[in-house]
Amino acid sequence: MYDNKRVGTQTVELKNRPKIISATSVVGPKEGEGPLGSYFDITLKDDKNGKETYEKAESSILYTSISESIRKGNLTEDDIDYLLCGDLQNQITSSNFAAREIKIPFIGLYGACSTFSLSLGLGAMFIDGGFANYVVTGASSHFSSAERQFRFPLEYGSQRAITSQWTVTGAGTVLLGREGNYPEITHITTGKVKDYGVKDVNNMGAAMAPSAVDTIYKHFQDTGRDPSYYDCIATGDLGKFGRQVTETMLKELGYDVSKVYVDCGESIYDNGRQDTCSGGSGCGCSASVFTGYFYKKLLEGKITKILIISTGALMSPTTSFQGESVPGIAHAVAIEFNNRG
Amino acid sequence: MYDNKRVGTQTVELKNRPKIISATSVVGPKEGEGPLGSYFDITLKDDKNGKETYEKAESSILYTSISESIRKGNLTEDDIDYLLCGDLQNQITSSNFAAREIKIPFIGLYGACSTFSLSLGLGAMFIDGGFANYVVTGASSHFSSAERQFRFPLEYGSQRAITSQWTVTGAGTVLLGREGNYPEITHITTGKVKDYGVKDVNNMGAAMAPSAVDTIYKHFQDTGRDPSYYDCIATGDLGKFGRQVTETMLKELGYDVSKVYVDCGESIYDNGRQDTCSGGSGCGCSASVFTGYFYKKLLEGKITKILIISTGALMSPTTSFQGESVPGIAHAVAIEFNNRG
Repeated sequence: MYDNKRVGTQTVELKNRPKIISATSVVGPKEGEGPLGSYFDITLKDDKNGKETYEKAESSILYTSISESIRKGNLTEDDIDYLLCGDLQNQITSSNFAAREIKIPFIGLYGACSTFSLSLGLGAMFIDGGFANYVVTGASSHFSSAERQFRFPLEYGSQRAITSQWTVTGAGTVLLGREGNYPEITHITTGKVKDYGVKDVNNMGAAMAPSAVDTIYKHFQDTGRDPSYYDCIATGDLGKFGRQVTETMLKELGYDVSKVYVDCGESIYDNGRQDTCSGGSGCGCSASVFTGYFYKKLLEGKITKILIISTGALMSPTTSFQGESVPGIAHAVAIEFNNRG
Repeated sequence: MYDNKRVGTQTVELKNRPKIISATSVVGPKEGEGPLGSYFDITLKDDKNGKETYEKAESSILYTSISESIRKGNLTEDDIDYLLCGDLQNQITSSNFAAREIKIPFIGLYGACSTFSLSLGLGAMFIDGGFANYVVTGASSHFSSAERQFRFPLEYGSQRAITSQWTVTGAGTVLLGREGNYPEITHITTGKVKDYGVKDVNNMGAAMAPSAVDTIYKHFQDTGRDPSYYDCIATGDLGKFGRQVTETMLKELGYDVSKVYVDCGESIYDNGRQDTCSGGSGCGCSASVFTGYFYKKLLEGKITKILIISTGALMSPTTSFQGESVPGIAHAVAIEFNNRG
């Protein structure tokens, strides 16, 4: 009765190929002014979204994204079996309070900025395993709520290191289902926590790069694929410096990804114009770039095979104050679409 | 090819009945002195567990529990396909740092004190769906790390409300697998976020009770069962007051659970002797009571059918300061064991 779906040591193959029926990106004004601005579904004029606080704004952005993804699928809350979400707020309150407004059985996740692909992979497993007909997955982040929680009050006007990153204000969610002519999730490679001893919290790209390398390498080893299999390999939010480290390390391991590799964090802003240093970060980065940009490219047939690897730095201010280094994690999800429509 | 496992609106039936191969509870000195003290597998003499900080102590307790559960199954880290854990620390750092030491693909969860049954249910779905051969799931909490994060520095010596609860110092993990003569997970009812507008963070039992009631009620409705089906129905950490509210509300809904209902938080301490007010709380409460006490009662045949419902309050200090009420969530897992050994 068991239908073993394991491939290699860290990968599963989803034989029923869950479909991504819809996807919705909601971003702040700064993200809307970036190179991918025209692709996002909803761009806020006010990054407080009419709310009293940045935290409530973040939760409302996630709520909007979830509602939109359900609406686009011509479904209602009652049709959705599970909601899987996470964010960067302490106790993931953005997700909890969004879930309070949407009456769907809720599974809270915390993978720092790896949460988007973590939720996407888990949701797909729920569909593939026969546990759900429809699932909504996603993640959010907000520059101002993250900045004051992890770094300094905005009013402090602190200077930023050249390797630092800019937390994306945005949310991205998808609606997953069993049927239809939509992009399909085929494989999931779940990451291990990696720690190379980086203690510089202003260089999270470097801290996360080894985990991205490890998960991508394991994905190739487990599936027997190499970079040429994919039209696009996209990491979550390593930024310019982390992307360079990842590319170099993978080359040393025998995989030259340079022709197909991009990083969502490097792509979402124009550093020259937007002063974002190494690039974007936050759960909302890969969430909004996948749902806003890559999902549309899949539907258009511009991309047919993509590997998305959201990347998370698993520290907290408390662990950093206590002298700990920054552990990283990365989860990969393989998606394919050959439009038969 | 789809094998639909859905039962009713919020429940799944696990047709392959994942087995709980082993379970390990690790608790602090105060928990060791409580009514269930003799059942816990490991009781610390020092609640810092020889570490510099309470946060590092909590992570080490969780690590010990995970390692022990794997060892009891005569397995090694390499045999385990997924580790699913969570805790109460900001950015779930207790789990992240424990996962860093144990090289297993890691899925971080946040469900506040509902995390134990959340992780147990998800891990069982991984086994049932063919995604894993072995999974370790669990949760932890620590009185002193929680107290200073959510409430006041210990040195402040603040007074406690009679309805307040005492965060359990402890961790509980289980090893799940496919085969063998062990307690079996049969059904999972995943909860929705419920908020009845309670704003008193010193009365979390009342805030969480409606979510426990909702999940237990849905479980009965979905499965067609009633309280007489179970030898034991155990909520996570509602405490004395929350347990009374839950019992009353369920009776009003037509289900008299009084003969089989206990709350882990009420059971773990002796309030008269230990001054714990309404009872224990924290992810580690239901985690240590299930793995320490109920699992052994299942193996001994004293209990053959149990429904465990960990209960979480999804607020943060930030949301409380911003005037928000306390949303709750509860996840139910049904476990049966008819010893054929």
